[in-house]
Amino acid sequence: MKVVTSIPELQRLANEARLTGKRVGVVPTMGFLHDGHLSLIRIARQHSDVVITTIFVNPAQFAPNEDFEAYPRDLVRDEKLAEKAGTDLLFVPGVREMYPEGYLTYVDVENITKVLEGKSRPTHFRGVTTVVAKLLNIAKPRVAVFGQKDAQQVAVIRQMVKDLNFDVDIIVGPIIRESDGLALSSRNVYLSPEQRSDALVLSQSLRAGEKMILEGERWPDAIRAAMRDHISTKPSASIDYVSLADAATLEELTTVRPGRQILVSLAVRVGQTRLIDNTLVTVP
Amino acid sequence: MKVVTSIPELQRLANEARLTGKRVGVVPTMGFLHDGHLSLIRIARQHSDVVITTIFVNPAQFAPNEDFEAYPRDLVRDEKLAEKAGTDLLFVPGVREMYPEGYLTYVDVENITKVLEGKSRPTHFRGVTTVVAKLLNIAKPRVAVFGQKDAQQVAVIRQMVKDLNFDVDIIVGPIIRESDGLALSSRNVYLSPEQRSDALVLSQSLRAGEKMILEGERWPDAIRAAMRDHISTKPSASIDYVSLADAATLEELTTVRPGRQILVSLAVRVGQTRLIDNTLVTVP
Repeated sequence: MKVVTSIPELQRLANEARLTGKRVGVVPTMGFLHDGHLSLIRIARQHSDVVITTIFVNPAQFAPNEDFEAYPRDLVRDEKLAEKAGTDLLFVPGVREMYPEGYLTYVDVENITKVLEGKSRPTHFRGVTTVVAKLLNIAKPRVAVFGQKDAQQVAVIRQMVKDLNFDVDIIVGPIIRESDGLALSSRNVYLSPEQRSDALVLSQSLRAGEKMILEGERWPDAIRAAMRDHISTKPSASIDYVSLADAATLEELTTVRPGRQILVSLAVRVGQTRLIDNTLVTVP
Repeated sequence: MKVVTSIPELQRLANEARLTGKRVGVVPTMGFLHDGHLSLIRIARQHSDVVITTIFVNPAQFAPNEDFEAYPRDLVRDEKLAEKAGTDLLFVPGVREMYPEGYLTYVDVENITKVLEGKSRPTHFRGVTTVVAKLLNIAKPRVAVFGQKDAQQVAVIRQMVKDLNFDVDIIVGPIIRESDGLALSSRNVYLSPEQRSDALVLSQSLRAGEKMILEGERWPDAIRAAMRDHISTKPSASIDYVSLADAATLEELTTVRPGRQILVSLAVRVGQTRLIDNTLVTVP
């Protein structure tokens, strides 16, 4: 595995690979790698001859009041894990490499970025789409792999790729969970042992909501209320949103119709740590 | 020359060319081709093995009160001219091909899009950068050729290409003028014979401003005032702006410093027709 910090060098190596007929795959991450990230690298490995993993804590997707500075970083450990999972090129650009002085350009996806995460984090997705557009132009990959954990991010990136005609296939890897159900997240490291235990209400309430849909509940508000009630049993947990939305348009549902694919998702602050989780349910 | 209307087909043909080692060049236009456009196609011809000329009157760069519907179109004539100038692939997508239902993504360049043209046309450059980003992703060219006539457009596209790391060289072709100095423009067709004659104040006042700079005038307001005075001699001409700006940052100048490159530019409405023109001057 080669570690690359310069954009022109990655561009050169990726061009070289492509011109010799190799399939390039990219896995964009913010580092502090866990088994969720590693599963995405393994998926990229299956679909590509050259796997580029990127590690970049992207300031453009954090608001001033968010945890950009505190976001956990461990490059030494990340290098070992990324290599073991099958990375060929580890791209670790500095902030000034990605956003040089005088930087002015942003990619915006409308509508679907205004709900759910975008409601609490109004500039978040603009940062995501901008950095992903840059990475796609730098590496020009055949495939790019993202995790279902960030369900709305997947929807937003798919929309951008389609609208701006990026010539890349988006592959989505499933959510990886601890054995007790907690979805893996770099932010889990912020949790105290007690908060770690309280954080189980996220996956538990998702399973409860899913069960209600599968058992025939047709009133979304009843499902949202039951999920909220479950989360409220933990005093350290404060709800940002609990959502039942159309999986394609991300519009909140007013009815649960058979055959529809529903994104059940939530954001909950456990202590100071904001956690998200979701599940896709096809209505029987 | 092959005429292509579908994005996947152009993508396929451009990929094919690239994979066989050919240099692809793109000339984005809104059609109704004149010698200015044809000079850009000839420049692309010199730098590429496969020249793609695109003709697309891009609704996203027109405001609702502007001339999108009335914008002149003549595809039969354009096909002949584009072929004669050296086009291999003429890309003529429909509006629904470029902006299908549910389209949501836009590319925004900040700051330099807010002045000059952007002041009068606040959503114009967003439409330009979005459609150019799409064309660059569809054709993935080695070079793209634009005209200096749209000086601010050139600056905005250069900024986008640099910021989003598009792997393409931008080549800029000089302004082509009628023998009496009028800059070629598809919109010149709107002018009555009398307006056509009045429209000469644009290039004349640019030459007057340039002369003042070259002869040592150091006060930009004196130059702007002289240019405005000249334009005001024609009652059918109403000034939108007369600008002396730094050629790189597009900031209006308060002093004329030796060695600096100045963009002298203007927008003038002659009757109902809004015309623009500019010249680059290096201060002696």
